[in-house]
Amino acid sequence: MSCLQKEITLSSKPRGFHLVTNEVLKHIPEIKNFSVGVAHIFIKHTSASLSINENADPTVRDNMETHFNVMVPEDANYYQHTFEGLDDMTSHIKTSIIGSSVTLPIKNGSFNLGTWQGIYLCEHRNHGGSRRLVVTISGELKA
Amino acid sequence: MSCLQKEITLSSKPRGFHLVTNEVLKHIPEIKNFSVGVAHIFIKHTSASLSINENADPTVRDNMETHFNVMVPEDANYYQHTFEGLDDMTSHIKTSIIGSSVTLPIKNGSFNLGTWQGIYLCEHRNHGGSRRLVVTISGELKA
Amino acid sequence: MSCLQKEITLSSKPRGFHLVTNEVLKHIPEIKNFSVGVAHIFIKHTSASLSINENADPTVRDNMETHFNVMVPEDANYYQHTFEGLDDMTSHIKTSIIGSSVTLPIKNGSFNLGTWQGIYLCEHRNHGGSRRLVVTISGELKA
Repeated sequence: MSCLQKEITLSSKPRGFHLVTNEVLKHIPEIKNFSVGVAHIFIKHTSASLSINENADPTVRDNMETHFNVMVPEDANYYQHTFEGLDDMTSHIKTSIIGSSVTLPIKNGSFNLGTWQGIYLCEHRNHGGSRRLVVTISGELKA
Repeated sequence: MSCLQKEITLSSKPRGFHLVTNEVLKHIPEIKNFSVGVAHIFIKHTSASLSINENADPTVRDNMETHFNVMVPEDANYYQHTFEGLDDMTSHIKTSIIGSSVTLPIKNGSFNLGTWQGIYLCEHRNHGGSRRLVVTISGELKA
Repeated sequence: MSCLQKEITLSSKPRGFHLVTNEVLKHIPEIKNFSVGVAHIFIKHTSASLSINENADPTVRDNMETHFNVMVPEDANYYQHTFEGLDDMTSHIKTSIIGSSVTLPIKNGSFNLGTWQGIYLCEHRNHGGSRRLVVTISGELKA
């Protein structure tokens, strides 16, 4: 087995859920060398998260954003951590709900995903800026 | 270290939370060859999820289902992605909350879980059908 | 690549979200031997969870606790699994929302985290006691 780690930067995105499978793959051409394994994708921030979800209909991403805003409302009266704006504490909460990393199986040099699956960058801040990820691939190299 | 990947199919289950530890283990007898490592279990769908939780009292799984239906209600008026039924968009949201994969430690040829832990298949659709999983085991083979 | 697994015990903590990065690191000095890889940290309980979040302002952890108590209320009338106390079923639900493990990238002998990131032990029980974790490190040893 072999292990490879790369730090990559995703371009700045507006608040919401974004499909980034291809943007991630563009940064890790080395995945082609692995026959089988896993890719661990980790975001080095606490106000944006990563998920796996539906890759086709953009309204799924829109409805995700709407639901998470209802489930973690900015106008709750119990937040004390507010000095970075009303969207900051809610971003931390959403990050712990969704998660800071995803792990994907690798097969034959690419992600082994279902037909309708893609990687989401979930940008919870109004102005989050570019986001840094650490991708660690562990697996068997092709013969 | 060695890495092994298998695709397995879990039988169709009704909507709800299901304990599937033994059904998963039945499909991966190769785990017995590993002395130490991790098993990454990934579901290739976006309307069902995987979790680790209590393995004894069935009312825990029932109450999980009830709570997630309250927290992600089907009668919310803001869903646009509705052409696959009212249970579809809520299934995508629940999947991002719970997660598309679990990673379990392996020790002495089996999962190294706590006494009360088991693997849950969380079936969020009314009629989800059978579900495909990718299991990737990475670790040290027994001597 | 090499793989190492240790079981460690975190000291008993009150209900709430706790920063435990240093407490975890103290138990795994072997991480220093790895140049690159991942650390999988797994909690062997179903009423406490692990997360990655903000490591600086304690009110973030307080507000997490408050929000999760609102999102998963103990006074809901639909819980049947109540014989272990009102804080038990809610603890199981919070655990499936937040997750039973975190996976962190390793680089140059330590976790490769963002500046503001730390490991949270999320203690959902009123009296959870000490908590057992399984840490599995997989990666390349330093030359």
